[in-house]
Amino acid sequence: MPHIELSNDLPGISGLLAHRKDTGAPLSQLVETLLRGPSPLSRGERELIAAYVSELNGTRFCSASHSAFAAAQLEGGQDLVKSVLHQADTAPVSERLRALLRIAAEVREEPHPVSDAALAAARAEGAGDTEIHDTVLIAAAFCMYNRYVDALDTALPAEPGYYTEAARRITSQGYVNSKAAAGSTD
Amino acid sequence: MPHIELSNDLPGISGLLAHRKDTGAPLSQLVETLLRGPSPLSRGERELIAAYVSELNGTRFCSASHSAFAAAQLEGGQDLVKSVLHQADTAPVSERLRALLRIAAEVREEPHPVSDAALAAARAEGAGDTEIHDTVLIAAAFCMYNRYVDALDTALPAEPGYYTEAARRITSQGYVNSKAAAGSTD
Repeated sequence: MPHIELSNDLPGISGLLAHRKDTGAPLSQLVETLLRGPSPLSRGERELIAAYVSELNGTRFCSASHSAFAAAQLEGGQDLVKSVLHQADTAPVSERLRALLRIAAEVREEPHPVSDAALAAARAEGAGDTEIHDTVLIAAAFCMYNRYVDALDTALPAEPGYYTEAARRITSQGYVNSKAAAGSTD
Repeated sequence: MPHIELSNDLPGISGLLAHRKDTGAPLSQLVETLLRGPSPLSRGERELIAAYVSELNGTRFCSASHSAFAAAQLEGGQDLVKSVLHQADTAPVSERLRALLRIAAEVREEPHPVSDAALAAARAEGAGDTEIHDTVLIAAAFCMYNRYVDALDTALPAEPGYYTEAARRITSQGYVNSKAAAGSTD
């Protein structure tokens, strides 16, 4: 049972977004822009950063959701995502993405300037200001989404195929345009 | 010097919002809805929660900004805000608001369910689901805004009257409708 009574029984953040459309609208627009809008980072890479931060934060719903969305959009699929979540330092990703994951981990930890070492490593691998900005804001945003989902003790999905089905919807329709994407049933 | 080159020299989050209008738009809409949209919590109370979380996070720009915005909208003014930031347990606020500040502090700490004790204390003081939801999401959102501002090492304002002037604009025009509110000069 979530900590507050919701207008629906959708799991995770879907229930909160459908319950509170006033805050749900900008929250959905933000994640759409961050993970699917124009960026030098691919959609798969950005979903992977979101999944990685959510995993470090221990937020199961967000980690499983964005892992599925990343797997659906990256060549390495689920195996690649799992290896990043469990061993980012040795996972078979580009050195540029590995350096950006380190920046994301620093942002997650606490509000403080990203270290010069982490920035220099990312720049040495070809990451520019936009890659760094987008990585920082994705990591910061998932420190919000993760807290929102966990603090209110939202439910995990009951259906085993939930995340795969959600990945199909999100990758085809996005976070805003599809009512199904936000889990709304009206 | 911020970690990335910005299109302007505005301080704190203002520079980031004006530099990246794609992400700036939903970020501004979210804070407008959270701190100024319909809620059983007054605008002053919500600004105080934002200032309190930012102070606990050590994010000077956000703490000073939202302290000024809270002071401008609460009867106790600056003295009340200072007492909350430095000694929330004994500050002269209602027991309902004190209980909500404790919930905000728990949300800030890490992504985990708000404790039953903190929830029960808030409900005993008359806080309902909406007060609890809004407190949780404000606290979670400032864990994002604070990280965004600090991770990219944004500048503090040079002018001593900056926060007072910002408070005048925000309380009269809001975070979205006023170009000046976002610090945009175009």
